[in-house]
Amino acid sequence: MFARLLHALTPLTASAHCDLPCGVYDPAQARIEAQSVKATIAKYNASDDEEFRTRAILIKEQRSQLVKEHLWVLWTDYFKPPHFEKYPQLHSLVNEATKLAGAGGTKGSMDEAVADQLLSKIDEIAKIFAETKKA
Amino acid sequence: MFARLLHALTPLTASAHCDLPCGVYDPAQARIEAQSVKATIAKYNASDDEEFRTRAILIKEQRSQLVKEHLWVLWTDYFKPPHFEKYPQLHSLVNEATKLAGAGGTKGSMDEAVADQLLSKIDEIAKIFAETKKA
Amino acid sequence: MFARLLHALTPLTASAHCDLPCGVYDPAQARIEAQSVKATIAKYNASDDEEFRTRAILIKEQRSQLVKEHLWVLWTDYFKPPHFEKYPQLHSLVNEATKLAGAGGTKGSMDEAVADQLLSKIDEIAKIFAETKKA
Amino acid sequence: MFARLLHALTPLTASAHCDLPCGVYDPAQARIEAQSVKATIAKYNASDDEEFRTRAILIKEQRSQLVKEHLWVLWTDYFKPPHFEKYPQLHSLVNEATKLAGAGGTKGSMDEAVADQLLSKIDEIAKIFAETKKA
Amino acid sequence: MFARLLHALTPLTASAHCDLPCGVYDPAQARIEAQSVKATIAKYNASDDEEFRTRAILIKEQRSQLVKEHLWVLWTDYFKPPHFEKYPQLHSLVNEATKLAGAGGTKGSMDEAVADQLLSKIDEIAKIFAETKKA
Amino acid sequence: MFARLLHALTPLTASAHCDLPCGVYDPAQARIEAQSVKATIAKYNASDDEEFRTRAILIKEQRSQLVKEHLWVLWTDYFKPPHFEKYPQLHSLVNEATKLAGAGGTKGSMDEAVADQLLSKIDEIAKIFAETKKA
Repeated sequence: MFARLLHALTPLTASAHCDLPCGVYDPAQARIEAQSVKATIAKYNASDDEEFRTRAILIKEQRSQLVKEHLWVLWTDYFKPPHFEKYPQLHSLVNEATKLAGAGGTKGSMDEAVADQLLSKIDEIAKIFAETKKA
Repeated sequence: MFARLLHALTPLTASAHCDLPCGVYDPAQARIEAQSVKATIAKYNASDDEEFRTRAILIKEQRSQLVKEHLWVLWTDYFKPPHFEKYPQLHSLVNEATKLAGAGGTKGSMDEAVADQLLSKIDEIAKIFAETKKA
Repeated sequence: MFARLLHALTPLTASAHCDLPCGVYDPAQARIEAQSVKATIAKYNASDDEEFRTRAILIKEQRSQLVKEHLWVLWTDYFKPPHFEKYPQLHSLVNEATKLAGAGGTKGSMDEAVADQLLSKIDEIAKIFAETKKA
Repeated sequence: MFARLLHALTPLTASAHCDLPCGVYDPAQARIEAQSVKATIAKYNASDDEEFRTRAILIKEQRSQLVKEHLWVLWTDYFKPPHFEKYPQLHSLVNEATKLAGAGGTKGSMDEAVADQLLSKIDEIAKIFAETKKA
Repeated sequence: MFARLLHALTPLTASAHCDLPCGVYDPAQARIEAQSVKATIAKYNASDDEEFRTRAILIKEQRSQLVKEHLWVLWTDYFKPPHFEKYPQLHSLVNEATKLAGAGGTKGSMDEAVADQLLSKIDEIAKIFAETKKA
Repeated sequence: MFARLLHALTPLTASAHCDLPCGVYDPAQARIEAQSVKATIAKYNASDDEEFRTRAILIKEQRSQLVKEHLWVLWTDYFKPPHFEKYPQLHSLVNEATKLAGAGGTKGSMDEAVADQLLSKIDEIAKIFAETKKA
């Protein structure tokens, strides 16, 4: 089932993420890291082990950073001027999403709701991404 | 369409990739990098610009390394002894896949067929992964 | 002289670049890397040693990447909604600057003029940055 | 015993650890990091300074990760199919060793005995490595 | 004003920091990171939020490491034998500065005075650097 | 001679290489990377495959950088003022060794003799290191 879905998905997501560019971009990369951030927050809140909680903070810091990096790559390397014209909110959207993965977002918070806001923003970006791939 | 597929996919791929562990693992991470490797090889072969080809070699080296790292994480952090018992070929499979992303594979080759072999191996791992998630 | 200039400069540039945030941001970080990119291009064009030229390509790749990262940090971590309101061109400006350090810019080119365009864009961002620091 | 083996091993160990491959591999790389993990745990347990203990947790996280990476390189890049045939336990051994440097091992524990188990596993791998170098 | 200072500064600081070498070195890189360390210590001491303080410790660790790396590059890549002859204290000065960014300095301390000592040492190095640039 | 020293050294080398500090330092880390550099140069010179040679250049760049980093750690973190007093040549020795792993050394050269000079310098540092461990 997974394999079938993965295969079904693959042609749609053939886009570019390295800066050759290779032409392979995929918002799933940011989403996977954001899910990790959310799960880490949940585990942190469920634990009262100080060592575990310290590890959770540092891992959340790293994963939030990866969310930012994957979104920056989409913003700079995938999206082109015509996309920004067609979606005038796109600059703000990515800016807000990356802020939500920073000090004012999941880096600085242990509230799962903040991770959910981040995931929603990523989904909005993924929706625009998917539309531009079809165009 | 992409968004719907992504959402359909998400529950299945909610697994662990950081080493808290957060519990979020996804073979798609390795697959995206391997697709990048394949696309980079194609662009290399289609170009006769020496600077571009040098850049392609170094980017392919980095992306092949990421394939290895994502697969190693699955092998060490996601798969557990019962999985290795149920799938006796799993050790060899991951070992061969990571070798296919190394010097004897996509790092050392500019043959797209090698990248296809790597993608096939990743798909075999993804298939086992999907079965263990359902179990 | 340098020390005096450095000191004179310091109060103006006391801003934030890590994501605590510590509050220390400075467009000079991006500029130094861009100067390195420009100097690397010049040395590449002046050399006919194949090994040296290969090294120049890979170092230019790394330094261009650092330019992008420093600019992304300013865009996400330093600039706030009121800045984007006051400077409506700011989103496009940073987007164009980071593109100029990518595949369509200094990563993909051995033309010093491209590095100069990148430096000009960084200076435009630095000018806005300086104005917001005074405000 | 290990020390003696390590000594016997050293002249032989001119082998490969980068993925050219250069042919220079050495289990000492993983062992040095594991010794660092053990020493860090000892210092953590001997201290009641909260800042120091937080630093110890993050350094132990990094060094445990390096143990995993060095062992993965041996498993994928140095060991070949004939080695896995001759030493049928080798896959499990490396898998267990890397797990011992992860969340269920030294990353997730402040027990020196766990670091000792990790060191023992590395010694078992080093013994096989030494035998294959002599063969 | 900032832009003018930056421009005034640039000719003096056109030196080398990557190892092509590109010829662009600048002690400002170490200084910016050290200012970040100092600001992080101040924010740590002003906060009683445990999560924030843990984040401050790990960020201070990273930024102190960057100070060390930027200074090592100056010591090895920029300064040449004639500089060490003319400034016999230069070896000790850089050694002490890098120690001040390590375990016995800002990594291991939450005292702002330690960060100030580090900044002073960097300024001494920057002064010598500026003199060698004029020579 | 070095091999004998290394053997004598090993039991003593439980010392510090991370910056907690954990107390585990070992010049073998720099030596392994330098051996890799030497082997990479030999393979480069024996090959006329352009892709392979490009890969060799980039791997040599990375491994030379690791040599520098391991030596810098010894210089800043392991060696203390009494060592520099007892071995007045130690500053220059480490400075020269790190330069030999840089642009004027193994990064910028494809001459195996340069790698041998680097290895000799590392052996001189290792000899002093061993003496300080016994003291």
